[in-house]
Amino acid sequence: MRMLVKISYHGGKFMGFQVQHHERTVQYEFERILKRMHQKFVRINPSSRTDKGVHAIEQCFHFDTHLNIPPDKWKYIFNSALPKDIYVQSVEQISDDFHCRYDCVGKKYRYKVYIDEERHIFEIDTKVQQKKPVDIKKMNETAQHFLGTHDFTSFCSQKTEIQNKIRTIYQSEVNETEDGFEFVVTGSGFLYNMVRVMVAYLILVGEGKRSGEEIHTLLEERDRKKIPFTAPAHGLYLEKIYLDKQELVNEFGTNIEIYNKNSTENV
Amino acid sequence: MRMLVKISYHGGKFMGFQVQHHERTVQYEFERILKRMHQKFVRINPSSRTDKGVHAIEQCFHFDTHLNIPPDKWKYIFNSALPKDIYVQSVEQISDDFHCRYDCVGKKYRYKVYIDEERHIFEIDTKVQQKKPVDIKKMNETAQHFLGTHDFTSFCSQKTEIQNKIRTIYQSEVNETEDGFEFVVTGSGFLYNMVRVMVAYLILVGEGKRSGEEIHTLLEERDRKKIPFTAPAHGLYLEKIYLDKQELVNEFGTNIEIYNKNSTENV
Repeated sequence: MRMLVKISYHGGKFMGFQVQHHERTVQYEFERILKRMHQKFVRINPSSRTDKGVHAIEQCFHFDTHLNIPPDKWKYIFNSALPKDIYVQSVEQISDDFHCRYDCVGKKYRYKVYIDEERHIFEIDTKVQQKKPVDIKKMNETAQHFLGTHDFTSFCSQKTEIQNKIRTIYQSEVNETEDGFEFVVTGSGFLYNMVRVMVAYLILVGEGKRSGEEIHTLLEERDRKKIPFTAPAHGLYLEKIYLDKQELVNEFGTNIEIYNKNSTENV
Repeated sequence: MRMLVKISYHGGKFMGFQVQHHERTVQYEFERILKRMHQKFVRINPSSRTDKGVHAIEQCFHFDTHLNIPPDKWKYIFNSALPKDIYVQSVEQISDDFHCRYDCVGKKYRYKVYIDEERHIFEIDTKVQQKKPVDIKKMNETAQHFLGTHDFTSFCSQKTEIQNKIRTIYQSEVNETEDGFEFVVTGSGFLYNMVRVMVAYLILVGEGKRSGEEIHTLLEERDRKKIPFTAPAHGLYLEKIYLDKQELVNEFGTNIEIYNKNSTENV
């Protein structure tokens, strides 16, 4: 049977989600437990592969098992065996043709920034420090230009291997917080480093170094070199995985077209 | 000349404040920098020696130097050379007869707890998890009994070497927070593990396992074995060092008598 697992993790001490040789990764921690239980290798299939330092409030994966263990017992087993910086929120059985990657119809990310010349010692790996003041209203206006369907070549890493760089953005806003601001973005999928490049650009706009009006031109030019910065990983949170088109419709209206059903690029 | 330094640190990756052989400590990080600058060993003298895992929002120390460096430059030099989990808030020159330990007239601590059956992944080393519900009103009423001058033998580690176990508590309250509660306590000084034993006891009261009315008896009995628990270190924050009697009077009224001027026990 196929099990769907929803998890959270603090990305600070992981070399990302995906297994890499000899590195501490989220995937490895689960496959290690599953191997011990099944006496053979069992692969987990995530909705997203987060990068080194990136956090997850909600991430999903599925795996197949012949073990007849109730979902709540699975949750207990995982949480008892996992390190403290990963936590299983829920386990449920799903249909055998469900696939976390191909049935993912959207993702929401949040990027957290505090504004202060002094370093905040209790947020060193959970928020990014911005020393200079920024125009948050201007940043929010600029963020609106990302809404809709665009080719995001200009806003992803040049290392991106995926061919189709067209994505649809359903939500894109910069909100003031108690100690700074947050960028919240929901889309059909995201290219490698895409959210972090968007944030780096928005901060330049907030500092008055870029105009913000130029976004449409930048998108049309499809030239990554026009935005030479990528914001640090530790401010980024994968916040929600949308596995059901209806959830997106409920949140963002009925005019949503789901484009990319199979994007699991790192961001 | 003598310099007073106010610092913050995240205690999660330190083996406490005080230098221990081959361990990562806050004191070592500063003495390493000072040795390099002076070409000889320079001791720092803290107001408090926090334990492994305990955090500091404000901690103070002084050191003596012949280097003619302005205070703001000292702050810059320290922050450039320190690891990310320590931060110097301010540096100032003080009189040569000032001593961070002997002129410390009080300390404020805060202990942070969240209440949830599920683990909070982003608070694993900054708040303590409480799974069962607690009666916060009852805990706050009980905390009032600590106010005043008492012998705290029953509420400190048996490892305490200091003879005089009489301390004065000026503030002792349990307040509800967004996700749990906080214990805030200000006193003339604290014995080894004292705040953590007080918290462990208050939680037992909140869970209905101890009565709370018994505090005066417990204090009189001076028997540590009556309270067999010590709350974990990672919920505890050293929040303020009082170096001036007037600050205490301003915050807690004019009836304050300052008892112990030389307590720097670990808590």
